[in-house]
Amino acid sequence: MTDWKYVFANLLLAGSILSSANADAQTAPSLGPMVIQEQGSFAVGGTVATAPGTFNPRRPLDPAGQTFHGDHLYAFYQRPANARRLPIVMWHGAGQSSKTWETTADGREGFQNIFLRRNFTTYLVDQPRRGDAGRSTVEGTIRPTPDEQFWFGQFRVGVWPNYFEGVQFDRGPDTLNQYFRAMTPNTGPFDMDVVSNGVAALFGRIGPGILFTHSQAGGPGWLAAIRSPNVRAVVAFEPGSNFIFPQGEVPAPIPTSFDTIEGMPVPMSDFMALTRIPIVVFYGDNIPAQPTDIPTQDAWRGRLEMARLWRDVVNRHGGDVTLVHLPEAGIRGNTHFPFSDLNNIEIADLVTRFLAEKKLD
Amino acid sequence: MTDWKYVFANLLLAGSILSSANADAQTAPSLGPMVIQEQGSFAVGGTVATAPGTFNPRRPLDPAGQTFHGDHLYAFYQRPANARRLPIVMWHGAGQSSKTWETTADGREGFQNIFLRRNFTTYLVDQPRRGDAGRSTVEGTIRPTPDEQFWFGQFRVGVWPNYFEGVQFDRGPDTLNQYFRAMTPNTGPFDMDVVSNGVAALFGRIGPGILFTHSQAGGPGWLAAIRSPNVRAVVAFEPGSNFIFPQGEVPAPIPTSFDTIEGMPVPMSDFMALTRIPIVVFYGDNIPAQPTDIPTQDAWRGRLEMARLWRDVVNRHGGDVTLVHLPEAGIRGNTHFPFSDLNNIEIADLVTRFLAEKKLD
Repeated sequence: MTDWKYVFANLLLAGSILSSANADAQTAPSLGPMVIQEQGSFAVGGTVATAPGTFNPRRPLDPAGQTFHGDHLYAFYQRPANARRLPIVMWHGAGQSSKTWETTADGREGFQNIFLRRNFTTYLVDQPRRGDAGRSTVEGTIRPTPDEQFWFGQFRVGVWPNYFEGVQFDRGPDTLNQYFRAMTPNTGPFDMDVVSNGVAALFGRIGPGILFTHSQAGGPGWLAAIRSPNVRAVVAFEPGSNFIFPQGEVPAPIPTSFDTIEGMPVPMSDFMALTRIPIVVFYGDNIPAQPTDIPTQDAWRGRLEMARLWRDVVNRHGGDVTLVHLPEAGIRGNTHFPFSDLNNIEIADLVTRFLAEKKLD
Repeated sequence: MTDWKYVFANLLLAGSILSSANADAQTAPSLGPMVIQEQGSFAVGGTVATAPGTFNPRRPLDPAGQTFHGDHLYAFYQRPANARRLPIVMWHGAGQSSKTWETTADGREGFQNIFLRRNFTTYLVDQPRRGDAGRSTVEGTIRPTPDEQFWFGQFRVGVWPNYFEGVQFDRGPDTLNQYFRAMTPNTGPFDMDVVSNGVAALFGRIGPGILFTHSQAGGPGWLAAIRSPNVRAVVAFEPGSNFIFPQGEVPAPIPTSFDTIEGMPVPMSDFMALTRIPIVVFYGDNIPAQPTDIPTQDAWRGRLEMARLWRDVVNRHGGDVTLVHLPEAGIRGNTHFPFSDLNNIEIADLVTRFLAEKKLD
């Protein structure tokens, strides 16, 4: 019960933010035109494999002497007119792609448009081995396993077939249709190093910026921030497992009825990078305080508990981590996707205030 | 040698086009801001599979009673201010994604931006089982087979390691790096019906529009035009195999040193849909006139020959197909990707003139 006091004080005692020049932008419906100064896409990072032998143009399907570029990241960027100094890199979670930040499942604007309208340059990522960055250097098999009632729970829309009471999620049938179809699989094994190297390479190309992560991207997001000094802040939405601790300070694993959450040790010199940038972590609603035998619920009890331990360790080493458990801050009904929930403008306002407070806007 | 006369006359004798109000837009470097009235993304089409049994929230990883939404198409759209009446749907080829129409490998603007600047609403597609539309209802295995020297040839940049003389392709090393990394694999088997149904569903949702296809999308593009009366024109860049003929009028297969090109029969009532819309087909340079033992060259000799037969059959049944073999029209050096080649503005101008001539703008 101490989280929200710490956090909310941290966010709101900056005080002047609500009366800042951005107040209108934060609350206006903002559905007019957007002036885009530049937009485009590119690949970055990755490796090249070469098959032994010599390429023979008369046998072009023989791999001999041929190359394979893979494990890169794909980014689509838009720079609005009068762009702010720091761009925002938006990194999807498990089973998702750049789509996660675009139009919401019920057809509203997602964080791509919302932050463009707030004059941030945005980079939407397909991480290595996902979406349009599908060339994986490691073989993968994709099986169409029916799993959506699991995701309905794991993403905390409810416990199938029931929606959580007051959940910030539209109940129209096409919304669920769009929601499930926003998923897209890994084209090769998920690899923390490969995906974090991809994002570090992106920051190497674009320069200083702000990193938004969702869920599975949380863990490799800490690694990317360690590997690139251009990551100047992290806004993490519901990071899952893979919290990073200094060697020797990893807390005891937290068992849940879904899995066991374990911290990941790194050398202290690496860890200290996380103490040098402002970080805010958001968790939504319907995370139980006590153990439960519903695995998709209990998973998040464990993750939130580990996130609190992690916050405390980073801050004990001089860091600046704010953990916002939204319902404790009076914001109820959020799912695992606060940035696309029905109240995503309100969530964007919290993020905007954080960025203003940390002088990142 | 009759192609270009037919075509070029067809394109240029409209005459007034060059002096139209669009002339400036066609030739200006056009790198100022773009005013985007609306942008976003959605899934459309596809199917739902359901596993037998009853979902048990205490065993959420058991497929019993769970669903799987797959085989949909993903589209990212942008509507500029003062948008023209008909939007353009841009459909990538084999091993590609929506990226194909975005920034070129050497960093210039692709057809996404070029046609937005010409006031067309654009829809960029990831076809079912590709890119951000990766949930396939059929299992697939993705192997990292080195194959890029093959693609260098098949995409007619040259015959590895040599570029074609005068090829409209930048020779900087990072260009090839970006070019190869723009590829992304199928996440399930390529299926003509599945992908053409996806595009037909897209036109069902958005209403009348113009379809741009590239390469492998050519064949299913004809099917999509048959299946949706909202396809009001097709601009096909280097369609590969799968030209569609009336039953009983399929020409003899054309053998090449790469493969054998065969027409695909459909009932006459289906075929006739292709005679009711204007169609323009573009092929680039370095397509040999005579058989060769370089398979990546000979493949295109056969495809171009089949395209000419197809044009003649459609037009004999009252259709309006224009085939532009660019070098015969004096435009040299184009690869398999005319829309992203160094002269892609000139190619866009040809397309713009075609759309104007057909009163589609």
